Amino acid sequence: MNTITDAAESTFSLWSRDCADRVERALESHLPAASVSPQRLHEAMRYAVLGGGKRVRPLLVHAAGVLTGARPEILDRAACAVELIHAYSLVHDDLPCMDDDVLRRGKPTVHVAFGEAQAMLVGDALQALAFEVLAGAVSEGLSPQAVTEVIACLARAAGSLGMAGGQAIDLESVGRSLTQDELETMHGRKTGALLAASIQMGAACGQADRLSGDMWQALARFAQTVGLAFQVVDDILDVQSDSVTLGKTAGKDTQDNKPTYVSLMGLDEAREFARTLHAQAHQCLAQLGPSARRLAELTDLIVHRSF
Amino acid sequence: MNTITDAAESTFSLWSRDCADRVERALESHLPAASVSPQRLHEAMRYAVLGGGKRVRPLLVHAAGVLTGARPEILDRAACAVELIHAYSLVHDDLPCMDDDVLRRGKPTVHVAFGEAQAMLVGDALQALAFEVLAGAVSEGLSPQAVTEVIACLARAAGSLGMAGGQAIDLESVGRSLTQDELETMHGRKTGALLAASIQMGAACGQADRLSGDMWQALARFAQTVGLAFQVVDDILDVQSDSVTLGKTAGKDTQDNKPTYVSLMGLDEAREFARTLHAQAHQCLAQLGPSARRLAELTDLIVHRSF
Repeated sequence: MNTITDAAESTFSLWSRDCADRVERALESHLPAASVSPQRLHEAMRYAVLGGGKRVRPLLVHAAGVLTGARPEILDRAACAVELIHAYSLVHDDLPCMDDDVLRRGKPTVHVAFGEAQAMLVGDALQALAFEVLAGAVSEGLSPQAVTEVIACLARAAGSLGMAGGQAIDLESVGRSLTQDELETMHGRKTGALLAASIQMGAACGQADRLSGDMWQALARFAQTVGLAFQVVDDILDVQSDSVTLGKTAGKDTQDNKPTYVSLMGLDEAREFARTLHAQAHQCLAQLGPSARRLAELTDLIVHRSF
Repeated sequence: MNTITDAAESTFSLWSRDCADRVERALESHLPAASVSPQRLHEAMRYAVLGGGKRVRPLLVHAAGVLTGARPEILDRAACAVELIHAYSLVHDDLPCMDDDVLRRGKPTVHVAFGEAQAMLVGDALQALAFEVLAGAVSEGLSPQAVTEVIACLARAAGSLGMAGGQAIDLESVGRSLTQDELETMHGRKTGALLAASIQMGAACGQADRLSGDMWQALARFAQTVGLAFQVVDDILDVQSDSVTLGKTAGKDTQDNKPTYVSLMGLDEAREFARTLHAQAHQCLAQLGPSARRLAELTDLIVHRSF
């Protein structure tokens, strides 16, 4: 037992619980109440967003905000926006015309619970809400210039050169084998773009001049590396966990004949690759000084989720 | 024949063609080329947006921008954003789980041409692109403060209290009879919100102090009235036109047992209602002075489309 490590871990766990609680309350307040018309749509939007998920992206936003001394109220807005985009993508991704999945975060997926048409509208409305919440960051004291930059960053990450584009590449890749480069391009967009945007947006919510040009570059490399690590670990968990642990259907990628890091490299090499990325991510953070501590702790959490 | 009227009409037709051409070029430039990966997604996005539609919303943006002396390059951005949101809503609305329509703007709908999964991603990516294009208006000289206001306006109009919410009410209303109030609430959100946003966004792209508080209020009333008139005329056209003229499946609302102004009031009374709204819209514009001329001409075009 190492008391110093224990104390640090305890602090991290307090910090991350506090962040998750803040973001949950902020999401709660930005989502229209289920009593507001159209009630069924609002009920479904709340079902899709609240009370579930690991909130990895909101934690990344808050951890990156520490680097530039961003105000927590502003970070809450950015964190909500990113989580709303993530939640919408899950709702659409689960639809029958996409992955046709019935279980998410341990509950029936939105289209199973509310019907396909509502699920589509839930996703559409959540995306719009994400940008509305971000535009409102002006009222929390973020400069309009920074707000427009953060909005542009999120829109790019969500669009056809980001997340939606990654999904499209994924669609076209089912049943055929990809090279590692192609797989990285797909995941870099599908999952990595939004994770990287979380980090960039969090840092952009504070004082940009607290970081040098070299530090911004190290942060960008870190964002890319941790996004990739996240996906490699996801692929490993998909083959080695059961559905109860995952909260979503396990073994789905294999069943759907989707290319993954495990199908490409085998399980052992995929684990080794995750370890390498983990080390690289920490090398990037070492250039950012002590205020990168929360990002370092989150990196450990992402990579060590379950193995 | 009234020569002055003829000259004015000719000027309007030149102006509207010029606007539509500008907006088409701007949409062209903001949409990624079909050669950019993922190619199929980009091809489908371009198919959904370019070379079709009456561009009513972009024309409203430009016409409202005249009121506050907004720069055309800035209005092009706002016009593109509104049209991208409109185009995405059509793509999603046509999907089998929604209206299940096969014809749009005289062409097969996106899901018929590209498949359902691509159609969903096309809509998702177009919505993100709309906000990216707006955020970029800073580079055209619009103040960041105005950019955030215009983004908030569009996000509200597109979201669960606007367009997506109207769709949800529409979903829930199929097969049951609505009162005129309920019908107005539904259309006010489904169609009216985005038309009204087009007008507000156009005016917000210029110098706000060119309009008094009373004039801003008259503009808001105009926006609401013209949005309603648009929908009443749409309902009339749905029963009295054929699919070739409409460019979409005619008689679809009746076939789907959807409540419309015609089913609620009968054809004659719906026409009378359209005439009343037309007159009310002009009364609002009369308070805005001569710079509202393009809006007045557009109002005539919207109401007199085909009857």
